[in-house]
Amino acid sequence: MQMTRRKLFATAAAAGAASALSPLGATPLLAAAPAEAFKSTGVYRYKVGDFEIVQLMDGARTMPMPDNFVVNASKDQAIKAAEAAYMPDGKVTIPFSPMIINTGSKLVAIDTGNGLGAFAASKGAVGQARQNMEAAGIDPKKIDIVLISHFHGDHIGGLKNADGSPAFPNAEIKVPATELAFWSDEANASKANGFNKAQFPNVKKMMDGIKVSTYEPDKEVAPGITSIATPGHTPGHNSFVVASGAKKILVQVDVTNIPSLFLRHPDWHALFDNDGAVAQATRHKIYDMASAEKMTVVGYHFPYPCVGHVEKDGAGYRLIPVAWDPNG
Amino acid sequence: MQMTRRKLFATAAAAGAASALSPLGATPLLAAAPAEAFKSTGVYRYKVGDFEIVQLMDGARTMPMPDNFVVNASKDQAIKAAEAAYMPDGKVTIPFSPMIINTGSKLVAIDTGNGLGAFAASKGAVGQARQNMEAAGIDPKKIDIVLISHFHGDHIGGLKNADGSPAFPNAEIKVPATELAFWSDEANASKANGFNKAQFPNVKKMMDGIKVSTYEPDKEVAPGITSIATPGHTPGHNSFVVASGAKKILVQVDVTNIPSLFLRHPDWHALFDNDGAVAQATRHKIYDMASAEKMTVVGYHFPYPCVGHVEKDGAGYRLIPVAWDPNG
Repeated sequence: MQMTRRKLFATAAAAGAASALSPLGATPLLAAAPAEAFKSTGVYRYKVGDFEIVQLMDGARTMPMPDNFVVNASKDQAIKAAEAAYMPDGKVTIPFSPMIINTGSKLVAIDTGNGLGAFAASKGAVGQARQNMEAAGIDPKKIDIVLISHFHGDHIGGLKNADGSPAFPNAEIKVPATELAFWSDEANASKANGFNKAQFPNVKKMMDGIKVSTYEPDKEVAPGITSIATPGHTPGHNSFVVASGAKKILVQVDVTNIPSLFLRHPDWHALFDNDGAVAQATRHKIYDMASAEKMTVVGYHFPYPCVGHVEKDGAGYRLIPVAWDPNG
Repeated sequence: MQMTRRKLFATAAAAGAASALSPLGATPLLAAAPAEAFKSTGVYRYKVGDFEIVQLMDGARTMPMPDNFVVNASKDQAIKAAEAAYMPDGKVTIPFSPMIINTGSKLVAIDTGNGLGAFAASKGAVGQARQNMEAAGIDPKKIDIVLISHFHGDHIGGLKNADGSPAFPNAEIKVPATELAFWSDEANASKANGFNKAQFPNVKKMMDGIKVSTYEPDKEVAPGITSIATPGHTPGHNSFVVASGAKKILVQVDVTNIPSLFLRHPDWHALFDNDGAVAQATRHKIYDMASAEKMTVVGYHFPYPCVGHVEKDGAGYRLIPVAWDPNG
């Protein structure tokens, strides 16, 4: 007797026969949603010990590679490095990501993004941190401490609302003492490199009227959060170690800008770096340590969600991004 | 006359003097939000030509490395490969990401995630695609076409609501003809490997009562979307090329599972692969092509947002993830 194979499920068998026909009969297919209907939401939550951290996507700037993006390498070399990271059409993309840390006793922000003024000026390309804070359910009024790493506009731009009022009205705003001294003295403008010289008016605009306190390196600037002097990018640039229990991460901020250029080529000087040679030395010091200790590293301009590990690779380093785990 | 340096902004100078004091005076710091208050939102939108695509995070499973995760390598080798990707504590994390494509005329889903049944069973670890569709503003009732790549539970689990009703009530559900034939014939269960043998009851549960049509490889299965036979993982496993204008991407689905194991070691056979040797041959064929043509590749189990490029690296391949660009 020939065995009759029993079909395991009903409708599939029927549909197999109807494969060339519309399975919907008279039901019309609906029109698709209009183009540009979707929106990325950049909220990445992860744990470090008992601390809960949110990386906020603040947006990204995509531009043709500037002529002097790498001060001590050619534009062609810079474009080749961007192309090696599959950035198309000779362009470079720089993302931005401030973060919020819930230590259990305090809500701490590290940097603030480009801010709502930049959001308007860029037609929403940057300055998205505020809307992503809302998506994450974080109320700026509940932030207890804002740690400012340095005074570039993409880090302090979110300190104020569009009308100039404080964006974090109940927070202590803590800034590096060296950074405050540098940027508040107009005599330093003439000593700064081109990019940084041009930042002085914006720093004045963003910081004027903001009540701040200062911090030194190697201090606990918030519960479980320690400052580290990482100068060169700016004179008072600080990074942070965030530690809870046996776990810790290194928040490197702008020790490197985008990894595809400046981790792969740590001796390249970005036009944003006020003192390229000092920044280069800081970069090697930090990444020799981070790679040797297999530290988890967070970069303000790393590919979102901006968390990874760094390995030595030839004369440079390579970023191994974490796998996004929504339950991690 | 000695020059008096003018301080550029007001409050900073005042605050510099008050650095050791609370800048808030009598204002009490607010209590932090309770732990676990934050939530990742996995919605990544990008463009391919005129098409708008959303990668939906469906969650991730993290587990101690299973004994037979790699059929033809030792557990120690598998753990070492996971550790090389900085997965901690001998564990392995597998993420999941279905996608929605707006072609301008149709809303097309590629696979459906683990589904709401798995969401409940996993306490929310997987099956998050539905809530992320909501976050993206995508109504399941408006999906016109659902393309199923193959019949594993993490791809078809979202076809039904928790009550068994169709999750995409107005969509044409298109499945590979070979896949339908394989899974609908119970005689094949005895020929399948262990993992796939165990999938038969779940396939029946998920597909029973679902009205489907079938597709063949190398066909335009939706506007601008072409099927490619990529067998081995399952007999009827299909991948897709999504093309609009001069741009295209390769949606490889499960040609590889997680890159840290199976792109780095393309000759390793995952326990999920029904025919490891065929899957291995498919993997080399697809990735020799993708690396030579520098194609943008999407992987269902790649680190979210699951989009990148693949390079040859020694005997294997390496994934270069895209930089998340919310304006891309």
